Amino acid sequence: MTVTHNCVLPNALRIPALTKLANKRIVLASASPRRLQILRQFGLDPEIVPSKFAEDLPHDEFSNVYEYPVATATEKAVEVYVRMVEENPDDPPSLVIAADTVVLTKIASAGSNIHDSLLPEVRPDILEKPQDKGDNLRMLLELNGYAIKSMDDRCIVHFHDSHISILEAYVDSEEGMDRAGGFALQERGAHLVSRVEGDFYNAVGFPGSAFFKWIGVLINEEDDFMDFDI
Amino acid sequence: MTVTHNCVLPNALRIPALTKLANKRIVLASASPRRLQILRQFGLDPEIVPSKFAEDLPHDEFSNVYEYPVATATEKAVEVYVRMVEENPDDPPSLVIAADTVVLTKIASAGSNIHDSLLPEVRPDILEKPQDKGDNLRMLLELNGYAIKSMDDRCIVHFHDSHISILEAYVDSEEGMDRAGGFALQERGAHLVSRVEGDFYNAVGFPGSAFFKWIGVLINEEDDFMDFDI
Repeated sequence: MTVTHNCVLPNALRIPALTKLANKRIVLASASPRRLQILRQFGLDPEIVPSKFAEDLPHDEFSNVYEYPVATATEKAVEVYVRMVEENPDDPPSLVIAADTVVLTKIASAGSNIHDSLLPEVRPDILEKPQDKGDNLRMLLELNGYAIKSMDDRCIVHFHDSHISILEAYVDSEEGMDRAGGFALQERGAHLVSRVEGDFYNAVGFPGSAFFKWIGVLINEEDDFMDFDI
Repeated sequence: MTVTHNCVLPNALRIPALTKLANKRIVLASASPRRLQILRQFGLDPEIVPSKFAEDLPHDEFSNVYEYPVATATEKAVEVYVRMVEENPDDPPSLVIAADTVVLTKIASAGSNIHDSLLPEVRPDILEKPQDKGDNLRMLLELNGYAIKSMDDRCIVHFHDSHISILEAYVDSEEGMDRAGGFALQERGAHLVSRVEGDFYNAVGFPGSAFFKWIGVLINEEDDFMDFDI
């Protein structure tokens, strides 16, 4: 019996980056409802198989901090792919999508010319999820008035220079407790942010526009892209 | 009998810009579900009283096109306020929020230094809502590879230089038919956009962050701000 898959939503744009994914087994290696929501907005409704990778790569092993989330996302994707193939060798995923978001502070002021700041003189700090409210406030104070950015598709999030009472009100909402950097751009955390340079959805959790653009490029450049399992 | 009002949501941040609005009659002069959604995200759930203003100010009467949406929004707010006071003089709104979004094309390339382009040498075209699919495609072709911006809180939306087949697929989705500029940044139109410089929510329909920041400033600067009706 052949298992059928279809992760492309009925209202998806009829573009190669999506039509090529029809009838493929597409997996999102993340439990993040925000990443799934963004993919669905772009027309893709993947299977959810959260990674079991511990996400504990030591930061200081990366001479360039921007390599850290790429390495973490790679580990997530590989772990899910290997596990799924082991569990069901007859129906391997055609594509496993993994992502990792880090929030960096203390980057060089970059304006919109993001690439100038790829190698800031001050090594940026990676902000993990806050441990408690005090930790959340400490993070927001580090971000306050600073520019931060995420990658691979990188964007800069500019924060208002908010009064500490505003930051405390946000911490009290507890919304930031589960978020890298201690804020949620797509919820009440929007009060703290003046503007974004880059892909808003990347800052939320997944760079949808760059991702599907890239899929389209791969389809153009590689005649057999994702045809191996037909 | 005193009518009570409360437009501040229970989970709103406890910041002056919101607590000051508690128990006031706050009105949004717009039928746009997107504007309401953004205000609710920021903690405010206003009464909806759509403006009956015709939105037909002649573009060419404005020597600076950036004055057009300000004038339109002003007309909307005044029309709603006057009508509500006439209908119920005993319970006037404390605040009427109106907004107008225009999408401009052919602006000078501005990088992130938006203010340099306030007076572009080429007069930008205002893109209205498309009349039909052909009109929608014409708009997207004008935007394709261009930067566009909206104001008062202004942001620049950078478009991919998409293949025309991608634009046609978007037009066929009919999503852009009801939107200024012919695209919806927060839906499938995100495929067409590479990045935003500025407030994403402004591009969607309402500059929430700047708005509440400004309310906070007004409360600080004017001792009697919104106290006239207590």
